[in-house]
Amino acid sequence: MLKLYYAPGTCALASHIALEEAGAKYEAQKIEFSTAEQTKAAYLKVNPKGRVPTLVTDQGILTETPAILAFIAQTYPAAKLAPLDDPFAFAKAQAFNSYLCSTVHVAHAHKGRGARWATEQSSFDDMKRKVPETVAACFQLIENEMLKGPWVMGDAYTICDAYLYTVARWLEGDGIEASRFPKVDAHMKRMAERPAVTAVLARQ
Amino acid sequence: MLKLYYAPGTCALASHIALEEAGAKYEAQKIEFSTAEQTKAAYLKVNPKGRVPTLVTDQGILTETPAILAFIAQTYPAAKLAPLDDPFAFAKAQAFNSYLCSTVHVAHAHKGRGARWATEQSSFDDMKRKVPETVAACFQLIENEMLKGPWVMGDAYTICDAYLYTVARWLEGDGIEASRFPKVDAHMKRMAERPAVTAVLARQ
Repeated sequence: MLKLYYAPGTCALASHIALEEAGAKYEAQKIEFSTAEQTKAAYLKVNPKGRVPTLVTDQGILTETPAILAFIAQTYPAAKLAPLDDPFAFAKAQAFNSYLCSTVHVAHAHKGRGARWATEQSSFDDMKRKVPETVAACFQLIENEMLKGPWVMGDAYTICDAYLYTVARWLEGDGIEASRFPKVDAHMKRMAERPAVTAVLARQ
Repeated sequence: MLKLYYAPGTCALASHIALEEAGAKYEAQKIEFSTAEQTKAAYLKVNPKGRVPTLVTDQGILTETPAILAFIAQTYPAAKLAPLDDPFAFAKAQAFNSYLCSTVHVAHAHKGRGARWATEQSSFDDMKRKVPETVAACFQLIENEMLKGPWVMGDAYTICDAYLYTVARWLEGDGIEASRFPKVDAHMKRMAERPAVTAVLARQ
């Protein structure tokens, strides 16, 4: 059986939603960030990166949201969570997920995780001040160029939707009103109505 | 025919090597970073992100290195550049590529691209000072946990090797001796001997 390690409020939500949408049998185990459980030896044995999500499978351990999402889509093809038979369409979905992990998530992380990349408090403060600008620029690009509607890839719901929803939930905390991006805002509301999403949020 | 937009010294090298290894018919067009060509209207029409690589295909435009690499592997299956028939092994390859784009490349980018995430010169200087530490920590994890040898995924050469080689070439400029990571160092030498790599480097 699959086992997902997650922490509430993190990007692990995307993998959790995807597992639920896939109809997978899985166990979800919370990692306590308030006590820095992700940095303790027991968890580092599972995931030496000290991050979430981690997906434990019968074949071994997977990390990194885009990889986990594609794995779920490929191992539960009946759920049709990605355009698996069309390499170009699959690559478009992967490009979207890659943008979220390498640009949008990273922009957001400069609010509270400045110590990953700098040492001085003045730098952390400077980074934090810029987050509303950088994250909003990312979402403007998503709004203008990427989100086809009603779902990210168009008519078909995919793993990209779970990931976009996860990251868009950080907007408010980053000081950005989602209403600035009407398509993203409507997407969030659409997502919040999905049974898989309400089930996972209730659980987390 | 495929067309790759690249700039020398950037992560576009990975896609360029993969196209060459795949035996693809492609054209490679250099974008002049010295005149900020990537931020000009003509290029933004191709890739609104203003970055490289961009891969133009008959079906449309792709961005983001991990997505482009998986696309090349899937559309040239005879080249066996990824474990396409094993979703778990494919996910491990994707997780490796995702780590490079979202953590290693991002750590490196804080040396010269601090303005993406902060405003003050003092912050840029602080970020730059930390790069040797953060990038080295990434490569220590790659050395200890990820690079199986002789290739990233083990006996089979994959898209991960082109990407690791691309990022490892930044070590010296980041003030880190590759010899601190013997497996990575040997991998770089092994890569430098591949005809596809020498051909692409000569071209770039």
